[in-house]
Amino acid sequence: MPVDEFGLIDRYFRDAGAQRADVLTGIGDDAAVLAAPPGELVVATDTLVSGVHFPEGSPAQSIGHRALAVNLSDLAAMGATPDWALLALTLPAADEQWLEGFAAGLSALAREHGVALVGGDTTRGPLCVTVQVLGHVPAGTALLRSGAAAGDLLFVSGTPGDAAAGLAIEQGACNASGAQRDYLRQRFLKPTPRLSLGARLRGLASACMDVSDGLLGDAAKLAAASGVAVEIDYDSLPLSPALRAVCGDSRARELALAGGDDYELCFSVAPPRLPQLLARLPPRQWHYTQIGRLTAGGGSRVLRGGTVMQFSHPGYRHFG
Amino acid sequence: MPVDEFGLIDRYFRDAGAQRADVLTGIGDDAAVLAAPPGELVVATDTLVSGVHFPEGSPAQSIGHRALAVNLSDLAAMGATPDWALLALTLPAADEQWLEGFAAGLSALAREHGVALVGGDTTRGPLCVTVQVLGHVPAGTALLRSGAAAGDLLFVSGTPGDAAAGLAIEQGACNASGAQRDYLRQRFLKPTPRLSLGARLRGLASACMDVSDGLLGDAAKLAAASGVAVEIDYDSLPLSPALRAVCGDSRARELALAGGDDYELCFSVAPPRLPQLLARLPPRQWHYTQIGRLTAGGGSRVLRGGTVMQFSHPGYRHFG
Repeated sequence: MPVDEFGLIDRYFRDAGAQRADVLTGIGDDAAVLAAPPGELVVATDTLVSGVHFPEGSPAQSIGHRALAVNLSDLAAMGATPDWALLALTLPAADEQWLEGFAAGLSALAREHGVALVGGDTTRGPLCVTVQVLGHVPAGTALLRSGAAAGDLLFVSGTPGDAAAGLAIEQGACNASGAQRDYLRQRFLKPTPRLSLGARLRGLASACMDVSDGLLGDAAKLAAASGVAVEIDYDSLPLSPALRAVCGDSRARELALAGGDDYELCFSVAPPRLPQLLARLPPRQWHYTQIGRLTAGGGSRVLRGGTVMQFSHPGYRHFG
Repeated sequence: MPVDEFGLIDRYFRDAGAQRADVLTGIGDDAAVLAAPPGELVVATDTLVSGVHFPEGSPAQSIGHRALAVNLSDLAAMGATPDWALLALTLPAADEQWLEGFAAGLSALAREHGVALVGGDTTRGPLCVTVQVLGHVPAGTALLRSGAAAGDLLFVSGTPGDAAAGLAIEQGACNASGAQRDYLRQRFLKPTPRLSLGARLRGLASACMDVSDGLLGDAAKLAAASGVAVEIDYDSLPLSPALRAVCGDSRARELALAGGDDYELCFSVAPPRLPQLLARLPPRQWHYTQIGRLTAGGGSRVLRGGTVMQFSHPGYRHFG
């Protein structure tokens, strides 16, 4: 039975994601019609390419999850609440089993965050997934990269480096077993967009971005956007027990600094706001750690015992 | 000099498109922040894959134009006014000459329609372009596919079939020369999204969609969404002089019915609204033609002198 592009979208995606009353016209027309959200619109798009952003042969469910998660992570970094998503899916063939897994992965995450899938396009070609997400923030409250000032403290959520180790395990480049292997693989295959944390940082963080290309490189981007320098304390990097056990302390810190795909939030807070941050978002409950500070000047440095360390690889770059 | 993903976006796309005061945060942060438009949001996404939606080696400027045009055409079909676009560009290599042409093609069309490019993602992989457009309509006025009723008249804008002939010329599958060749090629390489027409059809058309996969197949989709049947009059199909001269009358009508990539609007109007349509949108000025009608029942038929004609190929389908 031939399955055409419209049939595909109908069958696998029509009921994907959350049902929302503000979707006036969803999948199936030339475009979606949506009741405008309160405040300001926040929109992002990210693409996953097979063999570049995930290993060829990755589980379809993970690809569906990650395609949405990396976009939701962008909204989290703005402090935004997600509302809707569109999916542009390019596939070499209409593999129904693959589509079922992909849709399940995407849909479960969408429902978890109340996101409706309102449109898309399915085309034939090398596997490539682009998702667009739309959300909102109260007017004037979006968290930007550019708001940090010298003296602000720098934080990161979660335990960066885990996803890079998980990817290395997926690729057979790292040995691990048991629960540690499972944990690290899942941090790559099923990252958690930090939407609740991002939304609660509105009015508290001076700047925020998500860590997708490596903490050191991304923190440097935040600092550059804010016109300041960044210092990261090597010994403050939060490491998961699994990462340290599998990679050793030194390699674990290297991955925490330069590994990609973590989708944690890196944010700055002005010192006078610190008591409010700690009260509103207890660190043990919200899993974030102070890792450094922003200073006058430019560039990025990693410090250990007051000494500047040297790293050659600042993060993952396409065409680098 | 290595050009990284961020450098690429910065250099070629930061100033692409229109400048708009409602873009509060544009390219360069994790997501764009936009002042919500009046009325309802209208959003669409479409992908162009190399070798599927355009011949490999197509001019970069055309690919940039078409990537945005096919999306604007979706907004036109809803009667929407476009506001913003996002670009997800997957490229095998950072070819600066190609990027310059692509950005120029996309930017010129964006500026023509006052559309700001507010974000995007540049990734490495097989050439694939996904654009998302966001626009708006006054609340409750979006043109849907599903509003047609039996008895409504069916119209199409422009001269369908031209783009299919233009593509055949591009592929060396059709001989043409001089002004006719230039005209038909341009209809494929540089389609015109019918935004003004679409916006003016609000309150007049009972249903509307854009013709991207072939007029007959797309009209059948409009009819199916409306729960009616469609009849198209073979002899009423509007043909360009170039198409008729290059392909002959019979092949020209076949392309008008089944060729893709026209990005014209197919719309229905209830007979009582006809005087208003003709007065508000003089057909000679707005270039549209009555080509048939919607009737009770289901399916699609092409009529010639009261006889039903048979066609085997209803339109272009992926995975068909």
